[in-house]
Amino acid sequence: MSFWLKILGSNAAVPAHSRNQTSQILKVNSHFFLIDCGEGTQHQLNKYGIRLSKIDHIFISHLHGDHYYGLIGLISTLHLYGRKKNLIIYGPPGLAEIITIQLKHSSTSLTYDIEIKEWKPGTSELIFENKILEVTTFPMDHRISCSGFLFKEKPLPRKINKELLPKEILPSQIGLLKSGKNVENAEGDIIFSNDELTIEPRPPVSYAYCSDTRFMDGIVPFVMGVTLIYHEATFMDDRADRAALTFHSTARQAATIAKKAGVGKLIIGHFSTRYKNLKPLLVEAKEVFENSYLGIEGSDFVLVD
Amino acid sequence: MSFWLKILGSNAAVPAHSRNQTSQILKVNSHFFLIDCGEGTQHQLNKYGIRLSKIDHIFISHLHGDHYYGLIGLISTLHLYGRKKNLIIYGPPGLAEIITIQLKHSSTSLTYDIEIKEWKPGTSELIFENKILEVTTFPMDHRISCSGFLFKEKPLPRKINKELLPKEILPSQIGLLKSGKNVENAEGDIIFSNDELTIEPRPPVSYAYCSDTRFMDGIVPFVMGVTLIYHEATFMDDRADRAALTFHSTARQAATIAKKAGVGKLIIGHFSTRYKNLKPLLVEAKEVFENSYLGIEGSDFVLVD
Repeated sequence: MSFWLKILGSNAAVPAHSRNQTSQILKVNSHFFLIDCGEGTQHQLNKYGIRLSKIDHIFISHLHGDHYYGLIGLISTLHLYGRKKNLIIYGPPGLAEIITIQLKHSSTSLTYDIEIKEWKPGTSELIFENKILEVTTFPMDHRISCSGFLFKEKPLPRKINKELLPKEILPSQIGLLKSGKNVENAEGDIIFSNDELTIEPRPPVSYAYCSDTRFMDGIVPFVMGVTLIYHEATFMDDRADRAALTFHSTARQAATIAKKAGVGKLIIGHFSTRYKNLKPLLVEAKEVFENSYLGIEGSDFVLVD
Repeated sequence: MSFWLKILGSNAAVPAHSRNQTSQILKVNSHFFLIDCGEGTQHQLNKYGIRLSKIDHIFISHLHGDHYYGLIGLISTLHLYGRKKNLIIYGPPGLAEIITIQLKHSSTSLTYDIEIKEWKPGTSELIFENKILEVTTFPMDHRISCSGFLFKEKPLPRKINKELLPKEILPSQIGLLKSGKNVENAEGDIIFSNDELTIEPRPPVSYAYCSDTRFMDGIVPFVMGVTLIYHEATFMDDRADRAALTFHSTARQAATIAKKAGVGKLIIGHFSTRYKNLKPLLVEAKEVFENSYLGIEGSDFVLVD
């Protein structure tokens, strides 16, 4: 089991100061989830040695260009490389129309199938689930429909203590133990005790991605206690008015959400071009929430190694 | 007067080997003309220190993504920088729809006006003209509608030989001399002789951009005698079949067009990802047309300094 996040872009609105526009890649075991896809994201993936073909799921938070203009290029490149696997994209209403029209005008019939699943704005819904992970949306407060994404590992089965395991135990009985039950005989007597033969697994980890948003207390319940949160911090607090006006947040506000939600670690990003030096933003966040980090290009955040 | 070209991207289809997708910038005096705009073109302009705000005219050859996916990002960045000047884009039918739909879904009302002038496929027409330059289209042979662009300086006025100019000459009489005429008195006698007082100007320069195309003799008349030609050379000649099949050209074919048209200098570009080392393509072109160059990122071709 591995669970790590790499930042591919950290600048707001435009590329500047060698900072790209927003994109991140989350790896959970062998699955690569791309989160937002600003222009040049495929270049960043190449730069960091992440094979484009590994990505099967893409999550787009909203239709401002700095969060999705790189998507059509990535789709085209996968086609030109002869991809066969399906690609599933979760995005706001309108995304399918934008992609379809560009493929139409280039007379492109892709070598693979794309499924664009448009999530419902203004609410929270489960949009992805596999054996180990669930992804749910939750609403942001932005100028256009915008969603956060919560990537939540499912509770892990109890771990068998192999040293103590009797040789005669059957596979089906091991399954019972892993699910937290005792193994009983026909009379209801415990023959293999869960307490004795299993160990508590590590707690499941979770990652909350809070894309462009004004400060909003309503985010807190959705991200309560997550292991890692990313929250945009376009401005510093002396520009809180400007942040509110443009539907963005400050570093202090991002840290306030992290603190209220009792998260493990905070990443801030989506920095305004006005900040060439990002240290003051980090200092501001740390004043409220000590375990804060800058989400700059190439940074890795490993939750499970 | 200055007239130079800088290459911003040289790779075909996808970004690879640190080569970007197609884009070039042509500077004629104070005018910057952007020719094609693959993904990441705004990053390349930043890298080479060319201010985005300088660009007033953009020419798009066709709607394959490697030639235009960077356009919407550039349009957005100019908006975010608060541009006021008009931006005029010359592109194939369909481009306006693609741009409009993306601006609609981001609820963006640009700070400036865009005029998208869609040229007529399959023919040659004058699409731009100012005091010193004309731009005409000419058809390429590609899988979808695709156009080349000829940037042609207008004939320069004769230069006044200032050392010999009499003090009593009037401005209107200087104008007559510049236009190639003699200055005569009421009786029709020559009072200031053009031959004596003016010097032949340098010949006008011209640049022909031949975007994605199969080898086509029909290009030659449009580019006859140009100072500089760019012709795509996706493959080498041992893959001429593949080139024809995919509506592309080989280095030898690009050089053949240059030779037949008697041009001054040839740039080849739009290199297939299969060629990490580009020297063999240059050697192949030079076998047919000696004055050939690789159009790699950052290369400058100065026609008038």
